[in-house]
Amino acid sequence: MAIKVIGSARATCTQRIIAVAKALNVDLEIETLDMANRAHKSPEYIKNYQPFGRIPVLVDGDFQLFESRAICRYLVHKYQNKDTIQLIPEDLQQSSLIEQYISVEMSEWGTCIDKYVYETVFKKMFGLTPDEEKIAELRKAAEQVLDVYNQMLEGKDYLLGDKYTLADICHLPYGQHAYNAGLADVFDAPSRPNVARWWKNISSQPSWQATIAN
Amino acid sequence: MAIKVIGSARATCTQRIIAVAKALNVDLEIETLDMANRAHKSPEYIKNYQPFGRIPVLVDGDFQLFESRAICRYLVHKYQNKDTIQLIPEDLQQSSLIEQYISVEMSEWGTCIDKYVYETVFKKMFGLTPDEEKIAELRKAAEQVLDVYNQMLEGKDYLLGDKYTLADICHLPYGQHAYNAGLADVFDAPSRPNVARWWKNISSQPSWQATIAN
Ligand SMILES: N[C@@H](CCC(=O)N[C@@H](CS)C(=O)NCC(=O)O)C(=O)O
Ligand SMILES: N[C@@H](CCC(=O)N[C@@H](CS)C(=O)NCC(=O)O)C(=O)O
Repeated sequence: MAIKVIGSARATCTQRIIAVAKALNVDLEIETLDMANRAHKSPEYIKNYQPFGRIPVLVDGDFQLFESRAICRYLVHKYQNKDTIQLIPEDLQQSSLIEQYISVEMSEWGTCIDKYVYETVFKKMFGLTPDEEKIAELRKAAEQVLDVYNQMLEGKDYLLGDKYTLADICHLPYGQHAYNAGLADVFDAPSRPNVARWWKNISSQPSWQATIAN
Repeated sequence: MAIKVIGSARATCTQRIIAVAKALNVDLEIETLDMANRAHKSPEYIKNYQPFGRIPVLVDGDFQLFESRAICRYLVHKYQNKDTIQLIPEDLQQSSLIEQYISVEMSEWGTCIDKYVYETVFKKMFGLTPDEEKIAELRKAAEQVLDVYNQMLEGKDYLLGDKYTLADICHLPYGQHAYNAGLADVFDAPSRPNVARWWKNISSQPSWQATIAN
């Protein structure tokens, strides 16, 4: 039985998981939830799958797990073949740095990049009006956060140095939307050469390109 | 050489780490940063320790790590004696559930409880005026999130069931402030018996009481 993820191949948090599965060469069955009809808010879904009424949820036999980054770590630990890929290295210092960067993604990157994507992309999808003033503010916040990323990425191809890891993957879904929705010049600014190099390195990964192709 | 944490024994994110160290019986040296004089925003600190200019930072010989939850995991993996305590169990399903709940703490709990603490506690510390309308909104949001926690905690003493783990510890610093600063009736409401039981179980842990004693 294939591992199943209840979600949507177009949703950012599901894409985080798909990118990991593709990098690991693991088959994932995506069970698409009818979010337009608010299937994620049905009492059955909330009771049986995700108590906050959100996607994604992993179903692996009897075992269930929600929260996209927790699901990513689970797939890595269960399926990573250490001879071919190390999305989370075994070394404690290295794996701790991955955790550091995932926390940074959630607490620093998330508070501007994710919110920028919400204002510019998702609001339109939901028929809401983007708030131009907020977009300008979030753009400024993104510039400041990417200045710090530029410092953290000095001399590195990936967040951990020379290897593509889960820390990079976690940034891709919202980063890709933000890049496409008006922040390309912020990512690629001459003043942030390390961010530009990093973004090119991670967004060009075949497993990520395959994730957003369908 | 003792492991050092640059931070402040009174700051929430440092307390998360101290609570872990005390539960593990690990000696931690806290190097207090003079935040009143904005030592965390000095160019040296930003360059050498924390690029976003925040605390805490772990210094273990040559190895440095920031982000409080990443530091907690590092201490657990380095010092946990599996015969006496399992703040992160070895079993993959169990450790994945801990990650699920840490993500929930950051993305659901954090967006109301942490913000409530900022409005009611930290703003006063910084000489700012709390926004009463915002406090009322955040109180409502906390009620909704704790309703979901009540569901997640059904039949359990701790988030993972019968053992106190890192998932619980991560909730303590902001939870304790929120409880003391006006949300005790929300935590202890008769409609949320599982939350009330859980909160009593985790906040009464001797290692947590010792953390907030000084
Ligand atoms: N922290 C969660 C966030 C999940 C999340 O916000 N999912 C979105 C889709 S990307 C969702 O379900 N939105 C509907 C809603 O929140 O009501 C995770 O990483 O899994
Ligand atoms: N996500 C970070 C948050 C760190 C954080 O916000 N620390 C606060 C003190 S609890 C701080 O340094 N505030 C000063 C500032 O952000 O300028 C962590 O968990 O370590």
